[in-house]
Amino acid sequence: MGIVRVSASVSLDGFSAGPDTSREHPMGIGGERLHRWLFPADDASRDVPAGGVTPTGQDAAVAAEQFARTGAVIVGRLTYDIGVDLWGDVPFPVPTFVITHRPHEPRPMRSDVFTFVTDGIGSALDQARAAAGDRDVLVMGGATVQQQYLAAGLVDELQLNLVPVLLHHGERLLDHTGDTTTELVQTGLVATDAATHLTYTIS
Amino acid sequence: MGIVRVSASVSLDGFSAGPDTSREHPMGIGGERLHRWLFPADDASRDVPAGGVTPTGQDAAVAAEQFARTGAVIVGRLTYDIGVDLWGDVPFPVPTFVITHRPHEPRPMRSDVFTFVTDGIGSALDQARAAAGDRDVLVMGGATVQQQYLAAGLVDELQLNLVPVLLHHGERLLDHTGDTTTELVQTGLVATDAATHLTYTIS
Repeated sequence: MGIVRVSASVSLDGFSAGPDTSREHPMGIGGERLHRWLFPADDASRDVPAGGVTPTGQDAAVAAEQFARTGAVIVGRLTYDIGVDLWGDVPFPVPTFVITHRPHEPRPMRSDVFTFVTDGIGSALDQARAAAGDRDVLVMGGATVQQQYLAAGLVDELQLNLVPVLLHHGERLLDHTGDTTTELVQTGLVATDAATHLTYTIS
Repeated sequence: MGIVRVSASVSLDGFSAGPDTSREHPMGIGGERLHRWLFPADDASRDVPAGGVTPTGQDAAVAAEQFARTGAVIVGRLTYDIGVDLWGDVPFPVPTFVITHRPHEPRPMRSDVFTFVTDGIGSALDQARAAAGDRDVLVMGGATVQQQYLAAGLVDELQLNLVPVLLHHGERLLDHTGDTTTELVQTGLVATDAATHLTYTIS
């Protein structure tokens, strides 16, 4: 059986998005810097072709491994609303559950389906687990949804792609995730010039 | 010539101390957890003698290297007030500069001297550089003083001992360190079970 993962690219000062997330700035203002390891084409200083969205070397291996392990995805409504056009409606080609207060018919995506869940994070997780089979459930974002799962003690693994930058402003991934000290165990580490990929099991 | 370093043990959620720093809780409430890599005796679950404050293995090598490179130390007044009894007045056996608003005669320590600086962080740095010679100036803390040096662009290297724990509360090391995105370059990495020691050059 798979596990429940939270994965995010974060700045050294802990932001997983810049401020003012919108369709124009899906990662918040300045936040797209956090995905440069994943989408090197975002680096305007590099001479790469438009659409060159393939990470390289060890960064690519990290991305591929995360991709292969993912059997279902959970996102918040805002992430869906902002992302669905951006992604050409397939962030991952797996069943995707959208947590929302507004009921909505399931919406087909090219290779699977978006299901809208209105009865809470536990229900979304149950449905996602059933859909994921032996693979993992990825709580993809935004930070508010990731925090809710972390605070509820429902997350088995935290995967941080730590980017060597200070953003100074934005949305902090690990705010509001509990009250008493939470111990983790580091279980994975891959370091590149672009990011330090850290994996932790939550005990 | 040496460089200017900020070094701190931080939780995954970015705290370098727990809340309510005091003589009773020099690292803030719960914050002593952050120094377990450095002082394993703090780990009550280990069978180590009282006063067994020696880090082990690679953690020890990191601590020794930081110690050897340090030619002068800068601390804030609160860190001095809280720490001077705790440390037996020698945090590092090098000239130590205390930033304060209250003038005070130089105070001898066993192996050097505390100098009290009332005319600002630039003056403290000038004096510390002169005292450090070929070795580094370590801006030791607290976080407020480290933030002032970072925000002023006076720091060459940021050294984070990243501890696999979420504290949820306390003093964040990297708040108030600037306004526009700051790029860093990772130049060092040592990972142990106790901490991931990350070194960055600030560009």
